[in-house]
Amino acid sequence: MRVFGIDCGTEFTGYGVVEVVTTPRETRLHALTSGAIRLNKKDRTAQRLAQVHTELSALLAQHAPDVVAIEEVFYSVNAKSALKLGQVRGVALLAAAQAGLEVAEYAPLSIKSAVVGYGLAKKEQVQFMVARLLGLDVVPEPADAADALAIAICHIHTAQTLAQQGADRSR
Amino acid sequence: MRVFGIDCGTEFTGYGVVEVVTTPRETRLHALTSGAIRLNKKDRTAQRLAQVHTELSALLAQHAPDVVAIEEVFYSVNAKSALKLGQVRGVALLAAAQAGLEVAEYAPLSIKSAVVGYGLAKKEQVQFMVARLLGLDVVPEPADAADALAIAICHIHTAQTLAQQGADRSR
Repeated sequence: MRVFGIDCGTEFTGYGVVEVVTTPRETRLHALTSGAIRLNKKDRTAQRLAQVHTELSALLAQHAPDVVAIEEVFYSVNAKSALKLGQVRGVALLAAAQAGLEVAEYAPLSIKSAVVGYGLAKKEQVQFMVARLLGLDVVPEPADAADALAIAICHIHTAQTLAQQGADRSR
Repeated sequence: MRVFGIDCGTEFTGYGVVEVVTTPRETRLHALTSGAIRLNKKDRTAQRLAQVHTELSALLAQHAPDVVAIEEVFYSVNAKSALKLGQVRGVALLAAAQAGLEVAEYAPLSIKSAVVGYGLAKKEQVQFMVARLLGLDVVPEPADAADALAIAICHIHTAQTLAQQGADRSR
């Protein structure tokens, strides 16, 4: 399974591609790539959205994931921020749909729980565990890239848990 | 000048194309088309956004406007609604950018002022004036289509006012 995680933001939109590698000895997670699309505040909104769409579409085509994972909305932000974030998120969801991919959404709490085992974990703890789970020597930069990898890991853990539950039930 | 107005919504996204027709006798406004893209609540968000994008892109290609006019965000809504609205708005702005069109944004107050001459006008008054200014016998349906036409009219009036001010200054 190859998962494309997206962490939407109005300035940086992080992305990270995580693959489950299964060998006779082990099952491990491997980060294929990660990074962030940096938007220029001087550009007009429509141009910024076009940049996110173009870059995400190219990354999806390049890495051919099986699924896209994205963070559910964080409603504690104010309406103005929510609208701006929504604009970026809409374009990201569109890119996924145009690539024929399903989108799985996860709440921040679920992502932290899946990666650290604790829903109220701090940002640094999440980033540390992302590096550890992916066998990386350093935390991926920028933080938005690490967050996107965390979302992808959350999807893989959730899928594995659901598969395990299904296997348990059919016994 | 041909203006494509968009009134974004999570269920209905209205559109309306208004053209300024200048004859030796008069300058009048003419509605080329109007309508609404109706989204199916049963569809997944990404699919709904793809539908808005596909239909808006087709309409922009078909009617070849000079500019797109869109309502500025209405911040009195809550963050959850703002995010959902933002997703649709992001896709609409993307479609405009991809069509190589500039986007002009107008606050609800400005739109009402431009159409009715009164910023706190009621929705019905705006719709009545839209029909009157465009020489239509009935108010365009659904309401989202009339709202999109109002946004397009607002852009035309604003452009005319700016041109008049420029002419006054150069005297």
